[in-house]
Amino acid sequence: MNMPSRQRMTRRDLLAMIGTAAGGSVMYQAATSLGYAAESGFKGPPGLSGAPKGTSVLILGAGVAGLVAAYELGRAGYKVQVLEYRDRPGGRAWTLRGGDEYTELGGYTQKVGFDQGHYLNPGPWRIPYHHRAVLHYCHELGVTLEPFFQVNYNAYVHSRDAFGGKPQRYRHVMADFHGHVAELLAKLGHKGGLDAEVSREDKEKLIEAMQDWGALDENYAYKASPLTSNRRGFEKDPGGGLSGEPVPSKPIDFSQLLQSGLWRAIGTGSGYEFQTALFQPVGGMDQIPRALAAQVKDKITYNAKVTEIAQDGGGVTVSHVDAQKGGAVRTDRADWCLCTIPLSILSQIPKNVSAEMDAAINAVPYEAALKIGLQFKRRFWEQDEEIYGGITYTDLPISVIGYPNSLYGSKGKGVLLGAYPWGPFAYEFAAMTPEERVRKAVEYGAKIHPQYPKEFDTGVAVAWHRVPWTLGCFGVWTEQSRAEHYQNLCQIDGRLLLAGEHASYLPAWQEGAIASSLDAITRLHQRVIAK
Amino acid sequence: MNMPSRQRMTRRDLLAMIGTAAGGSVMYQAATSLGYAAESGFKGPPGLSGAPKGTSVLILGAGVAGLVAAYELGRAGYKVQVLEYRDRPGGRAWTLRGGDEYTELGGYTQKVGFDQGHYLNPGPWRIPYHHRAVLHYCHELGVTLEPFFQVNYNAYVHSRDAFGGKPQRYRHVMADFHGHVAELLAKLGHKGGLDAEVSREDKEKLIEAMQDWGALDENYAYKASPLTSNRRGFEKDPGGGLSGEPVPSKPIDFSQLLQSGLWRAIGTGSGYEFQTALFQPVGGMDQIPRALAAQVKDKITYNAKVTEIAQDGGGVTVSHVDAQKGGAVRTDRADWCLCTIPLSILSQIPKNVSAEMDAAINAVPYEAALKIGLQFKRRFWEQDEEIYGGITYTDLPISVIGYPNSLYGSKGKGVLLGAYPWGPFAYEFAAMTPEERVRKAVEYGAKIHPQYPKEFDTGVAVAWHRVPWTLGCFGVWTEQSRAEHYQNLCQIDGRLLLAGEHASYLPAWQEGAIASSLDAITRLHQRVIAK
Repeated sequence: MNMPSRQRMTRRDLLAMIGTAAGGSVMYQAATSLGYAAESGFKGPPGLSGAPKGTSVLILGAGVAGLVAAYELGRAGYKVQVLEYRDRPGGRAWTLRGGDEYTELGGYTQKVGFDQGHYLNPGPWRIPYHHRAVLHYCHELGVTLEPFFQVNYNAYVHSRDAFGGKPQRYRHVMADFHGHVAELLAKLGHKGGLDAEVSREDKEKLIEAMQDWGALDENYAYKASPLTSNRRGFEKDPGGGLSGEPVPSKPIDFSQLLQSGLWRAIGTGSGYEFQTALFQPVGGMDQIPRALAAQVKDKITYNAKVTEIAQDGGGVTVSHVDAQKGGAVRTDRADWCLCTIPLSILSQIPKNVSAEMDAAINAVPYEAALKIGLQFKRRFWEQDEEIYGGITYTDLPISVIGYPNSLYGSKGKGVLLGAYPWGPFAYEFAAMTPEERVRKAVEYGAKIHPQYPKEFDTGVAVAWHRVPWTLGCFGVWTEQSRAEHYQNLCQIDGRLLLAGEHASYLPAWQEGAIASSLDAITRLHQRVIAK
Repeated sequence: MNMPSRQRMTRRDLLAMIGTAAGGSVMYQAATSLGYAAESGFKGPPGLSGAPKGTSVLILGAGVAGLVAAYELGRAGYKVQVLEYRDRPGGRAWTLRGGDEYTELGGYTQKVGFDQGHYLNPGPWRIPYHHRAVLHYCHELGVTLEPFFQVNYNAYVHSRDAFGGKPQRYRHVMADFHGHVAELLAKLGHKGGLDAEVSREDKEKLIEAMQDWGALDENYAYKASPLTSNRRGFEKDPGGGLSGEPVPSKPIDFSQLLQSGLWRAIGTGSGYEFQTALFQPVGGMDQIPRALAAQVKDKITYNAKVTEIAQDGGGVTVSHVDAQKGGAVRTDRADWCLCTIPLSILSQIPKNVSAEMDAAINAVPYEAALKIGLQFKRRFWEQDEEIYGGITYTDLPISVIGYPNSLYGSKGKGVLLGAYPWGPFAYEFAAMTPEERVRKAVEYGAKIHPQYPKEFDTGVAVAWHRVPWTLGCFGVWTEQSRAEHYQNLCQIDGRLLLAGEHASYLPAWQEGAIASSLDAITRLHQRVIAK
């Protein structure tokens, strides 16, 4: 584990606010600092021309990495077979709907009670505009996308210790943070306090920019006025006729705002992965793997639990049993094997790989993360609070409340993402029964939305450390482990090579999984045709 | 006209950047400064119980103000009739589609050549989350909404005089503006330069906040690194496997950024009316008036050009002729008249109203604005530049390029908003033939998207000063004219009262039109039942 420095602790606080809490988020932050969490280098589907006829590839796992490999290798003329542990494609690109059953490690089975049209994506839930590989396959296969709001100015930022625990509107915190900073800099500029730092010409532009960006008045003050209310919102909103005169709102005091720490939420929406435009597939994230799987459906064997991977000079033999019924061991053999099984699972499967790859497979711990979906009888966040989509950030153990980015304004029910903590908070939740997790999420959420207890209908909780087929959410790299093991993890090892988000610079993202898969099959193809 | 002060000129520059150019924008800015452009005070549909049976109201205009009045008064038991100049409902809430014909003042007729499924909203095109009245009727009448992106971090900000005329990505300008400001403040803080302004505790929090919000490194520097690239984007994006190592990007120099003036675009998305969540009706803005009109369809007379409004102690008689065929004058009479005709038109119609109301009607000039829709053969902004929805800001006369917020990633054509200037730029365009306007929009736009000339397909241009039934885009209030005339405009004048965006604190917005209408009919009802 990467120990946080004092400054990292500060950043961790931010990450707690954005729903990536505590220990895990530190690792994530470390990863982010190393640049692992940003845009894909996807330049289009791979050129795999000239594949030797009859060359076979056995793909382990029908998540997006495995599916893309099967799709592209199949199109290039390779003989492809996919073994998948579960009875459906997608892996962590998973959508839970009413009627679904899910049994976690320890034996608890949840039957999802959501109404038709509502769902929870326990895994990936958003697609940044620069995740080109994901978008490419969505566009190519006709997966319809709709916008996903990360930032909603009318949602809340919340800290137990600030403003008496009362949630604040994002727009208030953001406008006032910008405004007070602008006022301070403009004031310093006028007093000569910037003269040692910037040229006279730049100082003048800077003061002009502060006035403009910060909504400062003609005296460069940030204070209650129609001008600042046109950023942060009004006390009484403008209307029409004789009753419509507006009343400006009063900014939060700068000192109070600084001490509250709520400014930690403000940088979030500016993050490269959270900038507009962000998307989600209409109907649930599993629309992507479903569309891919439809292209290769005769090539996938479901319910196949891999029990051993044995390679020799001529190929790879994979043993597997029926994941649900057990029974006799079956084997499949191919010239090559692309393994996309999470390292958390792969590390437990007998296999003959080089010592270097084996060490790499064992070097990557998996993040704990938890998602709870809560269905409510009515969409009170829209009806009572005018929050349409987006995210509320809190330092409560639930970390976030995510509002549905679909069915806006509909009169029926709605499903919120009721919790999405990482690290310690996720472990804390995972230690409870699913029912307790849901109950706690309702209890915590009620501190932000008092409507929770009355309107709660049904919920489901997925703790990734208890998901039998991944035992964690995603592979966590540190600067050190990446330097030591990443190349060894990605190299072709005899007749075996790996792909998945764990074999990428974009951990946890589908883009990383697909990018790693395309990189792997391109290298495999080059090896094959070079023979 | 409100003369801009030096500071207003600065703000005008911003408004030019956000597509509300020059003179008109100054007035708009004046209006904004007065708080006229923000949230509605809508608290639900009006309570109009106890309407005397048989009381009649004649409504002039079937825009959203007139339609909402007809809908609510009709439900309350009033006898309602609507006269509408055009052959369709909606007024300025208008959508142009392939096959539509439109003849402007001066006689130029345009036949719209857009493909099916594509459209231009020449008037209102977005609905902020806090425009509660509009959202209320959308939700009540089943008008499906979809998100409208105002800010797109991957779209451009552009100035002819900055960066050699090369458009800059919004994310670069925003991240670097924030980052450099944060670095400067943190530096001042460490040097003691803030000690006279803030307490020691606040200074410490402020420095911490600057590091966090500005993506400063452990030495409080803003410079090329994975950390800053995770805001502004990478030089080479992270990918997967052995080819995925990212390369950070290099920030713009602070002085260059300040002198470019491109920071003017950054405050825009924070404006109360442009904050997430913003919406548009699926399929075009006219879905709202169509849904309203369907509720009162037997009450609307289309093609009725009002020629005189004559009131007496017992009621109001309105004369009108067939707007298309002319012919005999017809009259309709009712106990009351709610007139929603734009003041630009109403000022020219003979009517007997008080001197005060007459003066108010004549006191409000109308903004020039122009919208040009351009259909292209392919969605190059998505395919080549990864811009999905949102807006590019430029100081070219086109002011903005708006990308379609629908059909993301589709393989067919797409319609851009190719120009949306106000004021002088709008006059400049209005003086051309529609064909010339479209040609100029393509010429200007090519400076931002070089694909324009090759991919251009067909276009349509609506210059609001040449729209026969409004002669302008919306009523422009100044602080002075509002103080002098607004009350007089909104008062019940005998048996006549006015509604529309011009009778609101939200000029140009449908919310203002509806809010003014609800305010008017509520007062009318109180007058009626008090009798």
